[in-house]
Amino acid sequence: MLVEGLPGIGLVANIACLHLIRELKAQRFCNIYSPHFQAMALTNERGGLRPPVNELYAAKIQSLEHDMMILYGNTQASSSQGQYELYGRVLDVAQDMGCRRVITIGGLKRDYPATSPGVYCAATDKEIFEKAVGLGAKLIQGRIFGAAGVLLGLAQVRGLAGLCILVDTLGLYPDAPAARVALSFLSKYLGLEVDFTQLDEAVRITDEMLQGFVPGQATPKTELVGLP
Amino acid sequence: MLVEGLPGIGLVANIACLHLIRELKAQRFCNIYSPHFQAMALTNERGGLRPPVNELYAAKIQSLEHDMMILYGNTQASSSQGQYELYGRVLDVAQDMGCRRVITIGGLKRDYPATSPGVYCAATDKEIFEKAVGLGAKLIQGRIFGAAGVLLGLAQVRGLAGLCILVDTLGLYPDAPAARVALSFLSKYLGLEVDFTQLDEAVRITDEMLQGFVPGQATPKTELVGLP
Amino acid sequence: MLVEGLPGIGLVANIACLHLIRELKAQRFCNIYSPHFQAMALTNERGGLRPPVNELYAAKIQSLEHDMMILYGNTQASSSQGQYELYGRVLDVAQDMGCRRVITIGGLKRDYPATSPGVYCAATDKEIFEKAVGLGAKLIQGRIFGAAGVLLGLAQVRGLAGLCILVDTLGLYPDAPAARVALSFLSKYLGLEVDFTQLDEAVRITDEMLQGFVPGQATPKTELVGLP
Amino acid sequence: MLVEGLPGIGLVANIACLHLIRELKAQRFCNIYSPHFQAMALTNERGGLRPPVNELYAAKIQSLEHDMMILYGNTQASSSQGQYELYGRVLDVAQDMGCRRVITIGGLKRDYPATSPGVYCAATDKEIFEKAVGLGAKLIQGRIFGAAGVLLGLAQVRGLAGLCILVDTLGLYPDAPAARVALSFLSKYLGLEVDFTQLDEAVRITDEMLQGFVPGQATPKTELVGLP
Repeated sequence: MLVEGLPGIGLVANIACLHLIRELKAQRFCNIYSPHFQAMALTNERGGLRPPVNELYAAKIQSLEHDMMILYGNTQASSSQGQYELYGRVLDVAQDMGCRRVITIGGLKRDYPATSPGVYCAATDKEIFEKAVGLGAKLIQGRIFGAAGVLLGLAQVRGLAGLCILVDTLGLYPDAPAARVALSFLSKYLGLEVDFTQLDEAVRITDEMLQGFVPGQATPKTELVGLP
Repeated sequence: MLVEGLPGIGLVANIACLHLIRELKAQRFCNIYSPHFQAMALTNERGGLRPPVNELYAAKIQSLEHDMMILYGNTQASSSQGQYELYGRVLDVAQDMGCRRVITIGGLKRDYPATSPGVYCAATDKEIFEKAVGLGAKLIQGRIFGAAGVLLGLAQVRGLAGLCILVDTLGLYPDAPAARVALSFLSKYLGLEVDFTQLDEAVRITDEMLQGFVPGQATPKTELVGLP
Repeated sequence: MLVEGLPGIGLVANIACLHLIRELKAQRFCNIYSPHFQAMALTNERGGLRPPVNELYAAKIQSLEHDMMILYGNTQASSSQGQYELYGRVLDVAQDMGCRRVITIGGLKRDYPATSPGVYCAATDKEIFEKAVGLGAKLIQGRIFGAAGVLLGLAQVRGLAGLCILVDTLGLYPDAPAARVALSFLSKYLGLEVDFTQLDEAVRITDEMLQGFVPGQATPKTELVGLP
Repeated sequence: MLVEGLPGIGLVANIACLHLIRELKAQRFCNIYSPHFQAMALTNERGGLRPPVNELYAAKIQSLEHDMMILYGNTQASSSQGQYELYGRVLDVAQDMGCRRVITIGGLKRDYPATSPGVYCAATDKEIFEKAVGLGAKLIQGRIFGAAGVLLGLAQVRGLAGLCILVDTLGLYPDAPAARVALSFLSKYLGLEVDFTQLDEAVRITDEMLQGFVPGQATPKTELVGLP
């Protein structure tokens, strides 16, 4: 199984999968570079730098039939053509390793904050969709843009099964609470036990930061969450 | 013969060909995906999803010398290069199956509603153009953008014969009445009997919806018309 | 020798080369299509249509050592990459036929009308530049955009010799008078006798049309000049 | 070792490397052309023209273990994809010649002038970063756009070591003083003796030009600095 966690709206998938990688002690086994990434390098606070990259991590999980692969990175491709090419290549690698299921995660941009962010989903087949609905997810209406849509659409064309999970977010800052909701839903869906202590701490910090935050007026710093 | 019915201005071609596919009980035999489609997936009301796609349908028609192929889909390519690449591939497939004629359909954007939408045409040769004019079509002036223009232009370069049919439309909503005019013209041109009952119902619903519609003020919902 | 006459600023090169093709009774021997052209088809007043195209014409000229090739068309490529790819291919064809010299023509956009449009030039080598200056041309300052620049730049990289001729134009309408100046300069440069009767008639019509024309206020129709 | 000196913000790298090429009497051994350059030709004041180009120069330096290669040119690629393709090719050539280290230079855009422009850096490994910090450089925070970022990022992926040097600049004119700071830092870092007489003259001229210069009000001419 492949879980997508690239930076998108509210960094929902990115934060959720960063936590997953840490908790599962997943190991990086693949870097994917693309000429369709933005023309730049990212720096870190220790004077290091690296190009935009997508990474694949793998974790062995006792309770699951198969290994879990996680797609993480610091960027998505910057053009439609680049998105299709990149995620096609990601699926090539994943399928070579036996992957038959894909779960994509993303933020669903809202103009007003939700008291409790909802979970929305779409699936490649009815059974998966109904399982997700049984766990409280609602129907995604309209289009799924970016990695969450393209990767699952390509997976479907290749005969893989899969689910897209979107969570309400304002999309104005790294939304740890929404990521918490996404990861919580994913773990229930997979029957996977995850320790949320560290993520809950990030949620607490985000909540503090948002005290007095008025949408459209002050935008908190939205740094990419990088792996050490 | 290949008839083009991709989504464009007023969805004229898309609605006309959806009706044609249903009435002729045409069968889909080919899906075409492109990295030049928009980077997203489309969802449906049953929790399913699919990537942007172009499809080819085939129907056997007693009254016509040859089978009819219909190009249907939920999108056009999102770049010039993508349009040329995509329709070149469509023609590859169609020609492999013996196609020698191409008919493209589209909407001709107008700023004011027409009491009775006019039919306009251009053709790869004089005979076809004059037959269309004899059936009431007027001359297209200027340029034909998108699939209706590119597909027929490429067809001409490959030595195929063909006709482009454009119909007046405001282009602000799925224009079933304009699609009715286009399909009606096409059936006359081909000597093809089509049952318009279902399409007439869509026309009636559109007309109702447009009661009190003021252009530029309220835009009715413009969902893509999807096949079941 | 290859002379470039694609549509650009003020259609200076396009009008000049259309006249040249007619006067020299040049014959078209090559059509070049590109996925980098705009996604459309062009129609004519007889109900015909054709895709965007670049064409090569050839003429035998007694007074010149070599045949003349003329690059004509109804468009330039719509992206930088497309321009380089297209004119590289044009040079492939021209060089295969023995071409060793390239002359490009264009308009030099001005904000105010010139009483007598000036001729400006740049060249791949000193000798050519000085011959042009001797005939009254001034120095081009800055950059040469589009076909006139790219084609000559590529020619230089391939070791061909050549000249770029730009003429002052407002660029707001098909500028027959500027085209007359360009073609007049070209014929002097090449020692080529050209009958200007037809082009002078176009100049007269343009002058009439411009009576009372105020830049920025009323824009006359700027249709592409098409070959019959 | 490869030093990058392409035109970017304030032309800092371009001016510094032009001076370096002259002082080291470096010889050009490679021209690199790309369809991703802007579609134009550049002219000079002698009536000559040339296409956009990137060039590689080589110099033997007694005090250094290895030869120095300098990447110079009149442009960067005009798309992300073009940047990756181009600098990938530059590294192909450099690595074929034994290059194992890359130094990129650039301007760091500031809204207000610095009394003394600061030097900022990032590096592929800790040792290089600390050596640069020891010479007075500060940490680059955030992203490094363009050639300075892409070239070093690609170098890192290929296992090469390297340093990026950015210098404060308003970026509104060819910033000779900032280039002086960059080159001065580079020569200290490399233990390379450079005669700054000519560059100091350019600094003096720039300072004169800037007397009375108010940012955002009057923009001095920003011509590319071309090699003779």
